[in-house]
Amino acid sequence: MSPSPAGVGDAVPDGPLTIAQLAALAGVSTATVSKVVNGRSDVAAATRELIEELIRSRGYRRQRRPAKSAALIDVLFHELRGLYAIEILNGVQEVAREHRLGVVVSELGGRHVPGRDWVEEVLARRPVGVVSVYSGLEPDQTERLYSRDIPLVQLDPTGDPDHGAPSVGSGNWNGGLSATRHLIGLGHRRIGVVAGPGDMEAARARLDGHRAALDLAGIRPDPALERHGDFNIATGRDLALELLRLDDPPTAVIAGNDGTALGVYHAAAALGVRVPADLSVVGFDDLPKAKWMIPPLTTVRQPLKDMGAAAARMVVGLAAGEALPQQRVELATELVVRGSTAPPRER
Amino acid sequence: MSPSPAGVGDAVPDGPLTIAQLAALAGVSTATVSKVVNGRSDVAAATRELIEELIRSRGYRRQRRPAKSAALIDVLFHELRGLYAIEILNGVQEVAREHRLGVVVSELGGRHVPGRDWVEEVLARRPVGVVSVYSGLEPDQTERLYSRDIPLVQLDPTGDPDHGAPSVGSGNWNGGLSATRHLIGLGHRRIGVVAGPGDMEAARARLDGHRAALDLAGIRPDPALERHGDFNIATGRDLALELLRLDDPPTAVIAGNDGTALGVYHAAAALGVRVPADLSVVGFDDLPKAKWMIPPLTTVRQPLKDMGAAAARMVVGLAAGEALPQQRVELATELVVRGSTAPPRER
Repeated sequence: MSPSPAGVGDAVPDGPLTIAQLAALAGVSTATVSKVVNGRSDVAAATRELIEELIRSRGYRRQRRPAKSAALIDVLFHELRGLYAIEILNGVQEVAREHRLGVVVSELGGRHVPGRDWVEEVLARRPVGVVSVYSGLEPDQTERLYSRDIPLVQLDPTGDPDHGAPSVGSGNWNGGLSATRHLIGLGHRRIGVVAGPGDMEAARARLDGHRAALDLAGIRPDPALERHGDFNIATGRDLALELLRLDDPPTAVIAGNDGTALGVYHAAAALGVRVPADLSVVGFDDLPKAKWMIPPLTTVRQPLKDMGAAAARMVVGLAAGEALPQQRVELATELVVRGSTAPPRER
Repeated sequence: MSPSPAGVGDAVPDGPLTIAQLAALAGVSTATVSKVVNGRSDVAAATRELIEELIRSRGYRRQRRPAKSAALIDVLFHELRGLYAIEILNGVQEVAREHRLGVVVSELGGRHVPGRDWVEEVLARRPVGVVSVYSGLEPDQTERLYSRDIPLVQLDPTGDPDHGAPSVGSGNWNGGLSATRHLIGLGHRRIGVVAGPGDMEAARARLDGHRAALDLAGIRPDPALERHGDFNIATGRDLALELLRLDDPPTAVIAGNDGTALGVYHAAAALGVRVPADLSVVGFDDLPKAKWMIPPLTTVRQPLKDMGAAAARMVVGLAAGEALPQQRVELATELVVRGSTAPPRER
């Protein structure tokens, strides 16, 4: 009878398995396990799956190889555009400096999944670990990093929250809630939304927080006041123009992020609508530019720098063989009230 | 009689010197030359100076050691703030991808000279070379990189143009000239300036271009209309307020960069001065935000991404042992006319 993962786990003590224990459980040589663990492809698919299933269910006891890692941490951005990336990078830098690590920055040019080259290069340079920002890795890419003891932490991951890797996010739902509550508190009842992409976790959470605030205040959401954009300024402008041209336009707009809010400013300027006298606007992120918009933008501060630092700290901890206190860290958002919100005009 | 560099250069053929030739000329062992060339400190100061003087005057024939370099290129920023850094980084990334190099990003936290740690870390990770952005290295830091065959290229260097390292800049003087010519062409005669720091090469060149445009148009520069700032938005605002409150205020303002121009917008908004009806504004850089200012900013485009790419290409060439076609590359600037400039109002 050939060994299988079911049941045989009882044969060795609880806890993560060494290569020798994996080999015994899988009924293969340690050399074969080592190949799988090191991401090599010359192993039969069935054997690889068996070993990976054992690692998934029981864990693999890393052999620490600090001498083999370079003093580098990799940060993978979906795109290097705008101040968002700079803020996160500053947080990673802060932790990297403490640990004397160089920060290697890559970007995917707007794609959300890295190509084969990127993984090859990471495996070749052997950083202590990888922070992936707003980018999803394919399961086999994650597996290859993992098999080489290169830990991965995701920051603000797109899509499916069940992505396996440890991750860092922020309180998007709470942020959406507090933004809309602020407007309701000022007296607004017709509140438009130019949300982010509907298939992005963070954007969905913000929108749900907004709807919850309406619901808790007894305001029925009007589907005509909801638009979905892509976080770009031009889209924000175009969708806000649609809202402002409604027969019964909103007196306030919640924007999916600060860039979208700038788009709303443009729409208002184009129609001669004054912010905040005729229209209140709330952003999301509090990038450095927000306080320099005219008028300064009321927005939900997302601690991007702290999020970058938290992700880097998780990577460094994992690389040192420490267990993470939490697989998912969520940092709080905070409403920052500035000059773009005011009570609605009497009509 | 002990050997000296003067005259003895005739004893060996022209061209860069090998370690053996340097040893013969300096009258020391090859081990000693190797120490100097490898940046070690256990060499008598006088001997080190003698060898470095020989290297400076004759050149040193690099022993190519590609196997010893990591597939990395280092980029050192004076600070990671704003879109300026992102643009340059994108240019470096482009070249790095071609050559399958990881891009290691460091920043000095606003200082202009890196600390000792940074150099130690670079020497330890052995990148193919370093691009230093808007940061001056101390001569001994440059020397240590050089002695380890780690080429350095400076981008938009501060201060003294005679900094030794190859460098990349842009046509700052021409940009300043074209910005002011554009305003003169619109009919402006009283043109204010909120320039960058007076001790920074790029800022000086822009200001000189401005003055040249005035001079060529027969307009006498009025010192009351010139202010020096630090490229920050708040400073731009404060200095523009001074200009706008003059008894005879300018009808147009040339800003040292796009951030300064945003500060000028704030000053105008605070005083109820309309851009461009009452005041024309011109920026410098054409960062992505410039076209999204309200009104969109007329500015001098500096090809930051191309500059980053050019610097990275120089580093890669030097690392491959190629001679540079030019020690100083200057990319052209270009005036981009948008909505922030118009003829002056009749008074």
